[in-house]
Amino acid sequence: MPSQFDEIIDRRESHCAKWDKMEAIYGVPRDQGIAMWVADMDFRPPDVVRDALQGMVDHGFYGYFGDDSKYLAAIQWWSEHRHGWAVDADWVFTTHGLVNGTAMCLDAFTAPGDGVVLFTPVYHAFAKVIRAAGRTVVECEMINNAGRYELDFESWDAQLDGSETMLVFCSPHNPGGRVWTREELQGVADFAKRHDLILVSDEIHNDLVMPGHKHTPMALIDGITDRLVMMTAATKTFSIAGAHVGNVIIEDPDLRARFSTRLAAMGSSPNSFGLFMVTAAYSPDGAAWVDELVTYLDGNRRLFDDAIAAIPGITSMPLQATYLSWVDFEGTGMTRDEFTRRVEKDAKIAVNHGPTFGKGGDSFLRFNIATPRALVEDACDRLTNAFSDLQ
Amino acid sequence: MPSQFDEIIDRRESHCAKWDKMEAIYGVPRDQGIAMWVADMDFRPPDVVRDALQGMVDHGFYGYFGDDSKYLAAIQWWSEHRHGWAVDADWVFTTHGLVNGTAMCLDAFTAPGDGVVLFTPVYHAFAKVIRAAGRTVVECEMINNAGRYELDFESWDAQLDGSETMLVFCSPHNPGGRVWTREELQGVADFAKRHDLILVSDEIHNDLVMPGHKHTPMALIDGITDRLVMMTAATKTFSIAGAHVGNVIIEDPDLRARFSTRLAAMGSSPNSFGLFMVTAAYSPDGAAWVDELVTYLDGNRRLFDDAIAAIPGITSMPLQATYLSWVDFEGTGMTRDEFTRRVEKDAKIAVNHGPTFGKGGDSFLRFNIATPRALVEDACDRLTNAFSDLQ
Repeated sequence: MPSQFDEIIDRRESHCAKWDKMEAIYGVPRDQGIAMWVADMDFRPPDVVRDALQGMVDHGFYGYFGDDSKYLAAIQWWSEHRHGWAVDADWVFTTHGLVNGTAMCLDAFTAPGDGVVLFTPVYHAFAKVIRAAGRTVVECEMINNAGRYELDFESWDAQLDGSETMLVFCSPHNPGGRVWTREELQGVADFAKRHDLILVSDEIHNDLVMPGHKHTPMALIDGITDRLVMMTAATKTFSIAGAHVGNVIIEDPDLRARFSTRLAAMGSSPNSFGLFMVTAAYSPDGAAWVDELVTYLDGNRRLFDDAIAAIPGITSMPLQATYLSWVDFEGTGMTRDEFTRRVEKDAKIAVNHGPTFGKGGDSFLRFNIATPRALVEDACDRLTNAFSDLQ
Repeated sequence: MPSQFDEIIDRRESHCAKWDKMEAIYGVPRDQGIAMWVADMDFRPPDVVRDALQGMVDHGFYGYFGDDSKYLAAIQWWSEHRHGWAVDADWVFTTHGLVNGTAMCLDAFTAPGDGVVLFTPVYHAFAKVIRAAGRTVVECEMINNAGRYELDFESWDAQLDGSETMLVFCSPHNPGGRVWTREELQGVADFAKRHDLILVSDEIHNDLVMPGHKHTPMALIDGITDRLVMMTAATKTFSIAGAHVGNVIIEDPDLRARFSTRLAAMGSSPNSFGLFMVTAAYSPDGAAWVDELVTYLDGNRRLFDDAIAAIPGITSMPLQATYLSWVDFEGTGMTRDEFTRRVEKDAKIAVNHGPTFGKGGDSFLRFNIATPRALVEDACDRLTNAFSDLQ
């Protein structure tokens, strides 16, 4: 039976960064290429989101947003029903997405020159805002244990020098696709305590977890609340990245007051479109859609992994969550320029480059498989051909 | 002939801050009150904006925005054709509205403890972000010369103590409705130079200028470019405040670099909805709509001013621009509590309170007249009745 996600809709010339910028950034021609880089799905959001927008357009007003009680209630409902985490409405701040949320945490909780810890490889935008804010990126490289990332607290304890004040953690992990176990999360919490770090837990991929795995919110780990900032969002889950709204959720009153002051000093309010869409998305209808989405993504994952597994020397990390496949070309023996050239010039696929994710990323490329299956199949064929000499 | 702006559309229960929050903030009952406070118009945006949104909804994607060349070209076209000011595309930054733009300027160009000058009374949000950012508000009170604000450079020269690093100027002036003359603007520029201040010129009301008056962009004043930040927006002009996008336009390369660094450190991108709407609005169709709008607002202004003029002791400042009428109750001899009570409890009109605009605002209330004429008439009748004992 065909899925709603099978429909291929041309996104070129629609102000879509993923498709329109791939030629300028990666040299992959727009008329022949497949865009598998930035984490933006080629799927329309659920009807419940579209209907909310259509309702706005029909009413015809887009003024200052008032009364956010339904919006906050929707966030609370989603958090409780999908993640088993009860959130008070007054813990929730709305930022312009979670890179902005991270940046606001840097402003609120760290000082220029402070070290900010990342477990690398990790989502590249963290390092960008840390550096732009005049803080120092402290790259703690994870262990790649036969294609599975593991946390290396012992080494990192030795590596840290006391100048660090914050840890930005990614859970589930982008780009490695790991769903961290409760034991690992407890380890992260203990590490943050041991080194007196504010722990910012970016859980933007918390809804996109493959069958057989279960995401645990860091907020449910013992003894971390007083130094924890949680970040979640509907934008990644529901294919509404352009809305640029994210949830920064802080239980601790002191941290909350500091964040609130900084938010007031930024003088910015969330856009109405994002608030309407999030309110609609975090609902039973939205939940049913996400379940279908994850099933579809899991199908894409299997297809993609099978194709990669059939190419000698190339491996993809097992994707426990996210739709971002982290592919290692180390075993090909090729230089980074060579395997990248084959993917971009021969296969004509635009992907994220490994080194931008920090230490440990050099031999990798990140493939976004949240696209109609026919395009994933096409990409698999192109990769198989581009590396056919390895067979 | 009826105007498109005559249509009364119920905005209650539509997440509209202006109508939904007036009971909580001002105690004006939602079912009987008239909302004339926050600067948000009760008019739908032009069809060209609605069509752009409908196009987005029909295509169904709201992902990361790419290729902003049309967006920037629209800003350039509007600036050149409506204001005679030629802007390079790379001077333009997009912020989450202009309060956010002001806040970003504070971050980029001032340090904690610096004095930031305001010519008061002035838009209340400036002082809020200045204080929230840990800077000091320096209130330079304007002269109220028989109901017309004038700039008092001589007194202010004596008042400043050298700790000031920025001036946030409002042109046209909110709440006084002044369109500043070229001579006055030159005086502001000279004052900024004399005291070595960065000049942030908030020109959000630049399109809403009454017949017979002409707004001059500060950027056209001689010798100020190297310390000037210009701020404009489509949100006020086109009734799309909920889009929360503003233009911060900086010609000077050094100031631009500093602002750019700070923007990167905030890790935030504008929402797609705002970018689509602004691109559509800054167009010949949008311009024709603004011309009709201003004619309608001018009609509202005359109606409102005539009613106020007929009440002894109450005067409204001549509105050369904006749709915000600044009404002085000084001549009534009433206490602030008393005239405010009459407006809120008797007339049941929600308005902005004068003292929030800083020194010189105590005897004033600000009325937003950007609402269908029948509501302005209703408001005039209510005010006439509430102060009938003055006749």
